[in-house]
Amino acid sequence: MSIYLQDIPLNEALARFEQALESAGLNGILGEETLELSENLVGRVTTQPVWARISSPHYHAAAMDGFALRAEDVAGAMPTSPVILTVGQQAVYVDTGDPLPLWANAVVPIENVEALDENGQIMTDARCPRSIRLRAGLPPWSHVRPMGEDIVATQLVLPSGHILRPVDLGAVAAAGHDRISVSRKPRVAILPTGTELIEIGQPVETGRIIEFNSLVLAAQIRLWGGEAFRYPITPDENALIRQRVQEAAEQSDLILLNAGSSAGSEDFSAVVVQELGDLLVHGVAVRPGHPVILGMIRRKNGSQCPIIGVPGYPVSAALTGEIFVEPLLARWLGRPPYQPIEIEAKMTRKLTSPPGDDDYVRVVAGRVGDQLLAAPLSRGAGVITSLVRADGIVVLPRGVQGVEAGSRVRVRLYRPPEELNQTIFAIGSHDISLDLLAQYLAAYGRRLVSANVGSQGGLVALRRGETHLAGCHLLDTQSGVYNLAAVQQYLPGQKVRILGWVNRVQGLLVAKRNPKNIEGLQDLIREDVMFVNRQRGAGTRILLDYQLGLLGISPLQIRGYDQEEYTHLAVAAAVASGRADCGLGIAAAAVALDLDFIPLFEEEYDLIIPAIYAEDDLLRPLFDLAADGSFRAAVGQLPGYDISRMGRWIQ
Amino acid sequence: MSIYLQDIPLNEALARFEQALESAGLNGILGEETLELSENLVGRVTTQPVWARISSPHYHAAAMDGFALRAEDVAGAMPTSPVILTVGQQAVYVDTGDPLPLWANAVVPIENVEALDENGQIMTDARCPRSIRLRAGLPPWSHVRPMGEDIVATQLVLPSGHILRPVDLGAVAAAGHDRISVSRKPRVAILPTGTELIEIGQPVETGRIIEFNSLVLAAQIRLWGGEAFRYPITPDENALIRQRVQEAAEQSDLILLNAGSSAGSEDFSAVVVQELGDLLVHGVAVRPGHPVILGMIRRKNGSQCPIIGVPGYPVSAALTGEIFVEPLLARWLGRPPYQPIEIEAKMTRKLTSPPGDDDYVRVVAGRVGDQLLAAPLSRGAGVITSLVRADGIVVLPRGVQGVEAGSRVRVRLYRPPEELNQTIFAIGSHDISLDLLAQYLAAYGRRLVSANVGSQGGLVALRRGETHLAGCHLLDTQSGVYNLAAVQQYLPGQKVRILGWVNRVQGLLVAKRNPKNIEGLQDLIREDVMFVNRQRGAGTRILLDYQLGLLGISPLQIRGYDQEEYTHLAVAAAVASGRADCGLGIAAAAVALDLDFIPLFEEEYDLIIPAIYAEDDLLRPLFDLAADGSFRAAVGQLPGYDISRMGRWIQ
Repeated sequence: MSIYLQDIPLNEALARFEQALESAGLNGILGEETLELSENLVGRVTTQPVWARISSPHYHAAAMDGFALRAEDVAGAMPTSPVILTVGQQAVYVDTGDPLPLWANAVVPIENVEALDENGQIMTDARCPRSIRLRAGLPPWSHVRPMGEDIVATQLVLPSGHILRPVDLGAVAAAGHDRISVSRKPRVAILPTGTELIEIGQPVETGRIIEFNSLVLAAQIRLWGGEAFRYPITPDENALIRQRVQEAAEQSDLILLNAGSSAGSEDFSAVVVQELGDLLVHGVAVRPGHPVILGMIRRKNGSQCPIIGVPGYPVSAALTGEIFVEPLLARWLGRPPYQPIEIEAKMTRKLTSPPGDDDYVRVVAGRVGDQLLAAPLSRGAGVITSLVRADGIVVLPRGVQGVEAGSRVRVRLYRPPEELNQTIFAIGSHDISLDLLAQYLAAYGRRLVSANVGSQGGLVALRRGETHLAGCHLLDTQSGVYNLAAVQQYLPGQKVRILGWVNRVQGLLVAKRNPKNIEGLQDLIREDVMFVNRQRGAGTRILLDYQLGLLGISPLQIRGYDQEEYTHLAVAAAVASGRADCGLGIAAAAVALDLDFIPLFEEEYDLIIPAIYAEDDLLRPLFDLAADGSFRAAVGQLPGYDISRMGRWIQ
Repeated sequence: MSIYLQDIPLNEALARFEQALESAGLNGILGEETLELSENLVGRVTTQPVWARISSPHYHAAAMDGFALRAEDVAGAMPTSPVILTVGQQAVYVDTGDPLPLWANAVVPIENVEALDENGQIMTDARCPRSIRLRAGLPPWSHVRPMGEDIVATQLVLPSGHILRPVDLGAVAAAGHDRISVSRKPRVAILPTGTELIEIGQPVETGRIIEFNSLVLAAQIRLWGGEAFRYPITPDENALIRQRVQEAAEQSDLILLNAGSSAGSEDFSAVVVQELGDLLVHGVAVRPGHPVILGMIRRKNGSQCPIIGVPGYPVSAALTGEIFVEPLLARWLGRPPYQPIEIEAKMTRKLTSPPGDDDYVRVVAGRVGDQLLAAPLSRGAGVITSLVRADGIVVLPRGVQGVEAGSRVRVRLYRPPEELNQTIFAIGSHDISLDLLAQYLAAYGRRLVSANVGSQGGLVALRRGETHLAGCHLLDTQSGVYNLAAVQQYLPGQKVRILGWVNRVQGLLVAKRNPKNIEGLQDLIREDVMFVNRQRGAGTRILLDYQLGLLGISPLQIRGYDQEEYTHLAVAAAVASGRADCGLGIAAAAVALDLDFIPLFEEEYDLIIPAIYAEDDLLRPLFDLAADGSFRAAVGQLPGYDISRMGRWIQ
């Protein structure tokens, strides 16, 4: 059977699914269960309105420790003409919460009476007197919680469709219930498929992929109120997958069949769905994630089990959960679907987007001065860290070919908007010490968000007012001085300061034991040496070009000069993987990936900070850390690092 | 031993507790546990930074189904001068995710090649050809996910103190971990005490109180990341309570001792804490909630167990959880304390506040026109429904004696601010049909928030622009027509419309079988009849005064004329409890509380709506419901209701 993948627009896909769910009677709450009140009910959704069975309080209760009495009996009491009541007849001692005698209509607090003994003398213990003396009257129903003060029997306590919170449980109990009807949790089967997959914790060999999509999907389902059942990995065999799907359909309300949803040689999902039921949609014009399958599986008893073919790339899988699974669970649970908070922000970079797709762009977001900024993260469907780092999603809808830098975009936030005010943007050259800084700043309630665009890119961001600071290591090839000249050139007239940060050694990263015997930049022109470069504008790139110029080497002589990476670690990874034989970078990156390092130059890496932020409370923890022994020690221990200039204002 | 309760300011109480926790070494994370990755970890907090053990991908992986090759080999390929590669030597078939052969550096997607058989003829199945023909070149590393694209080994994946979300678990697994260190859950013992308490589900007798504070506290603790242990009810006996506290201290990180924290005759909490450890604080100047106890219990091994004496009133108990327990759990878990979103709103009513206390006022909040409004709810510490209905809290700090109507206040929100835009304010006369309306509107994503201030109060709110609608049943005693005259009088020149709603019968609510043989208003002057009234401005009150005037009866002749209630149900509750013999109200309220009803008059209850809101999308569901058969039927079934005018615009 041959299967063709043809993307249809998201709203059309959702409409088809919707219609099939409706025909199958799966368009509302799946069912309800009546459960005893317990703390486990928090987050569950009521399926019936809760009406009060009893009032609360269900009798007139004393609101203070004191004596119950009739207000009329003490109406005339005054300091100079007190009233005395006989205890037992006209007044009765009550503790807070005690019922009032039927004849009483007020409580006088114990501290407001004089307790008298049988001789009319004042007693020290006020609880068992013969009589009490009052020197002031009080209105009827004083210090009484009248019946029904909180809840009147038959009144609506909670509507149906209400998500239970702790206080709701208390109100339901107060209203005389010991159980409550809530929607049952949808059972979701998660079927990972793929011959190349291995379970988490198994030894990792080349060509094997750790199966963690089922973990992410199960965690999403749990978070959204469903019950997740993770099945073992099924190899890519049509018969095995078909059997698993059939089995899962009998036991579940929904099947998530992970991967194999595309149209490749080992993609059986669509075939299986077609064989066991109805293939409604194969391909949705959503990026990342387009090979989504929507279908219905027939159970033995003739009923239908919806199935979603989830794409294999982790970002696609997680977004498929958000787009397709969450709203379905919400409907089955009887609660509104999750609505992210949206803010408007300025996009820091130009983005292009396939015009046929709804494009889900992960962004980091934060406030710099009076601007809310969104900076796009990696767009690869395989880059799950882009979701981990994301503050939100910008959807570039179908028909849009992209946005210009500086455009206003809507950001669907993953975190409370307040946190954006605690975000420090660091756009510029990356240094490993910034990862440590992020870790330490978290303890101060600050989020350091860094985008690696190179030293020059950072200065451009400063010029545009789009970052709180920029890491910079730009050598002035005339004076041999770092950063000062570049700041003057890029930011003329702007008030910025330069905070000394680290000196670090730059050199060549080579494979362990240096198999190609590379000794310096002059080896880069060798035929058998493949180089990996940093991107244009990176300080390391400028340093390289400067040193190559001194040696009279032309970039054209170097194989791999055009291979650009954006971080030291990425350069190191290229060497570690054998994709290149060497690259210029810092010692720490070599140590991190177990490479050898040939030290060549020392350079100065500083933080360029607009003068207004140098005074700002937002960045104070950063300055504190620059003087903090523990943080300095952590950075100083990085190989090839010297922290003696850290925290010194250079300009 | 005699115990004195003396309130100290909240910040002083917290500082004392803080200091004691610090001395006891309980000021940070309680401990960590290393757990296998699973969906149950969502919401747990990391105690260590997570560094990548492996890269992801951990090898160069094909990103498409196709042929791996060297980009150099096809550099010159053009439509008119294709390049042919021998499969097996220069090109190898790969599925998505397969590792690239070491010599390859690009993948050409299968749809971009011509597969050739041994005769150089094009084949239909492209997978096992002898050679492939390309009519275009491609850059190196095309359609390849290079090693480390997502995660580079040794890179920081998650900081410590991070609250785990589904995607985080995926990233941790991708980075080669199968377990993760998280803070252990604090164990919290909840000890309800009180001889008058009964467990939920037990028969309710006068003087007995359903114990649900432990349920609310346990649910809070679960929500905030702790483990709650609810102990059985302990009667008010010093020795028993002491024994329980000692036992709980050995098994828990924190004890919540509920009630008995005041200074009454049966309040043993402070004594017990003093006997078993240190009583740090007895009384905090917080309203509601002031009899809070903070202390430390000594365990057998000499270590300390913090104890919080939680006041017995349910609102006090829940707020004590929010103020004292949540920040402590946050610290023990290593996460930031919960920060409510704050908005600024206009207070609709004047409030007085004891100047010595931090006063926690529950409010409903919503947007009316361009104003954000906060309307205070019942301030009783026993009224848990005030927390159920609350949209947020306004704190009137120490030193403030209250706020004027119209003041700007900060509201700490309990719900996302977006929901305030879906709020319909109904301030005015209450009718039971509004409870049904609220229930039905919830399905449309609208929240109906009603404040019962009577018909005149509603017209005043309309005049101030502080409500979307006002329920009104004001009889013009000249014309005998309802509402039109009042609207003209109160809202001259304002564009408002009147939506016909219900006709309802008003009459006297009397106890079952009418033991006092009350037949009409003329019986209200009897010596043996106690009346309960509605508040000034209520339509029912005006109707009463009008009818009394016709009969020539003076209010002074009526016992209980000064007893005012704000709703029909509250009047019914007063009669049901025996506090009054009769009150004027609607039949539905009598039926609700199983009272007898003496019908006297029919009246018209309408909704007064500013013209701008009559056109507004916010209220559309309300107008739809007025025409909806199911809703009309539900209202029509209320006793004494006639819905024939519902939905008709009267003006």
